[in-house]
Amino acid sequence: MTHPLNPSDDPGFGPAHLPYGVFAPADGPPRVGVRIAGHVLDLSAALGDPEFAAASLNPFMARGRAFWSETRSRITGLLADDAAAAHLHPLADVRLRLPFEVADYVDFYCSLEHATNLGRMFRPDEEPLKPNWRHLPVGYHGRAGTVFASGTEITRPHGQRVTPGVAAPEYGGSRKLDFEAEVGFVVGVPTEAGETVPPERFADHVFGVVLVNDWSARDVQAFEYVPLGPFLGKSFATTVGAWVTPLEALEAARVPGPRQDPEPLDYLRPKEPWGLDLTLEVHVNGTRVSEPPYAGMYWTPDQMLAHLTANGARLRTGDLFASGTVSGPAHGQRGSLIELSWNGAEPVVLADGTTRTFLEDGDTVVLTASATATDGGALTLAEAAGTVVAR
Amino acid sequence: MTHPLNPSDDPGFGPAHLPYGVFAPADGPPRVGVRIAGHVLDLSAALGDPEFAAASLNPFMARGRAFWSETRSRITGLLADDAAAAHLHPLADVRLRLPFEVADYVDFYCSLEHATNLGRMFRPDEEPLKPNWRHLPVGYHGRAGTVFASGTEITRPHGQRVTPGVAAPEYGGSRKLDFEAEVGFVVGVPTEAGETVPPERFADHVFGVVLVNDWSARDVQAFEYVPLGPFLGKSFATTVGAWVTPLEALEAARVPGPRQDPEPLDYLRPKEPWGLDLTLEVHVNGTRVSEPPYAGMYWTPDQMLAHLTANGARLRTGDLFASGTVSGPAHGQRGSLIELSWNGAEPVVLADGTTRTFLEDGDTVVLTASATATDGGALTLAEAAGTVVAR
Repeated sequence: MTHPLNPSDDPGFGPAHLPYGVFAPADGPPRVGVRIAGHVLDLSAALGDPEFAAASLNPFMARGRAFWSETRSRITGLLADDAAAAHLHPLADVRLRLPFEVADYVDFYCSLEHATNLGRMFRPDEEPLKPNWRHLPVGYHGRAGTVFASGTEITRPHGQRVTPGVAAPEYGGSRKLDFEAEVGFVVGVPTEAGETVPPERFADHVFGVVLVNDWSARDVQAFEYVPLGPFLGKSFATTVGAWVTPLEALEAARVPGPRQDPEPLDYLRPKEPWGLDLTLEVHVNGTRVSEPPYAGMYWTPDQMLAHLTANGARLRTGDLFASGTVSGPAHGQRGSLIELSWNGAEPVVLADGTTRTFLEDGDTVVLTASATATDGGALTLAEAAGTVVAR
Repeated sequence: MTHPLNPSDDPGFGPAHLPYGVFAPADGPPRVGVRIAGHVLDLSAALGDPEFAAASLNPFMARGRAFWSETRSRITGLLADDAAAAHLHPLADVRLRLPFEVADYVDFYCSLEHATNLGRMFRPDEEPLKPNWRHLPVGYHGRAGTVFASGTEITRPHGQRVTPGVAAPEYGGSRKLDFEAEVGFVVGVPTEAGETVPPERFADHVFGVVLVNDWSARDVQAFEYVPLGPFLGKSFATTVGAWVTPLEALEAARVPGPRQDPEPLDYLRPKEPWGLDLTLEVHVNGTRVSEPPYAGMYWTPDQMLAHLTANGARLRTGDLFASGTVSGPAHGQRGSLIELSWNGAEPVVLADGTTRTFLEDGDTVVLTASATATDGGALTLAEAAGTVVAR
């Protein structure tokens, strides 16, 4: 069997990337694989370790950093000769699954620009940033049970929403369905209750990165969110990419975060650069509507994890924490429709000439992101895609 | 072997109660059991179904209402003669585990008195209740991974807190550690994404009830909670009772909820009475400091579940949703220390003559609750107990 791999068939998924996922071949149960040049390498068959015969990445992720690194080296070795060929499946022939079993899902609010924009729209009579925002990465828990793999249809959520001029809230389908382009981090190595993870221990616990679309019903959220935060406006669905990019593949993309003022407290002070120079793209029905830059995010993921554990909350394998909407300073860098359309006042024009203030039934949203790989080529985070359907 | 059961040995755990838990005998792996009169009946051995050989109630809970009811009848049958005797272990001889694997954890805010008290303390210059409060049961997601079984030690959480007169927040151990006395509901039967659970379907999905102590660091919470809600102030630990009381055991405790004004929207309108006449007790180091009455809660659990699923969020077996702090109108009915001590202004006096504004290291908090059982006797929900230890 000749080696079928041609990296140009699958740009961004060359030998310097090697993201992990869970797939089921036509004739067998789900197992762990690696995406490479339009194919999936069956790690269960190629490497044989029991962690790879699982229907989620969790057993593999629980093994820790030395095993992750060793596995990556073994895969690179396999791909260097023909040994891998027998265990490759064309991507088109397999079904992809949610790559990890989500333990807890936490969403942060790390973009200064996004927090400022939302503050202006939700609380026009106040300072857009609350007094805590520059002191800590604000975050909250989302619904782990509604994190779905890329490609899962998104049923339009219903909820209570207030119509201007109508005295009482009404129940019905959201009229302000939105996306949020985010970067998510997946925990591999757990901690015990009472333990903390300082910034310098980030890579000992975090396995890798996925794109996240934190679908949001803005009208539902606006009425419900005080004082306990977003609930039904977010809990109906969150989409993640089907392939988890290991941190090791992002070494060349690491950059320092922006200067922080005031300087963060000791427990949040970064020891190494864990900003990531990732450029996201948001496509609605094929039109690129935004290119949010992750590198400018005010709070970096090592700080997010240090904060999440600062109270002693334990981590579990499969915990997912996300950045919050990635928005940059330019209009074309805003990571949500509510920002792009300024809460409906400035409709976004798509390539087919139609406009959007919020998402309509049938709309497909695709998030992608690119970075420089360790071989100097391009690396593409696996897309997080979803299509809105009526309930 | 003679029948060793004497209900007076274990008040509130007689044959009309029969709560389910997970225990490990001295010589074997964890399995499902029922608490009866100071003993645990090993259901794995006594009934033999594979669901009872599990280390959590989840497989049993997933089976649904008809199986739950049939199981209860079979247990009652076993206890009526000596057939059960061979499978009874004295409670003191077994180790108890977290009874179910928590999928998602949602906490509501259903007590009018608690929400009003907290609003007055956290936002003294505003109306205590937000405009949404009487229209929907306000809730948010908590951390499922830090839900622990009764008896688990609680490590004092750390976090950012603001000291009056000091310009910037500081990081350190919480100075305002509190309990919250709550009633929790455990989901057995899941739903699909996009599905809702109207109030009349409540008992088709909810398996049973546990007491919940939603430990809270009030100083951490006060600084962090805007605009996305409580996070580290709550996420370090939540304690639940080790025995889940099935809904069927609470038939005689069912009462209508209070009159609601405005009348709730259709999707929240109760069809049957699902208020519960439970009287909670909160003990701090053996002193009873409060008796919160659950029957008066403004939002009932069928409404909580209808709201939680109103946007189409799916349920999973093991989802836990809790009432929020149960507080009644009288001072001695307040379900948290921040209310009892009015944020520290009115210390609570314990039986040993010491006073508490908030919890100190070494303090033990025990929640219990009683109701009328279907045989007219008393039924006691299993205690949720925890002792605070220094980090």
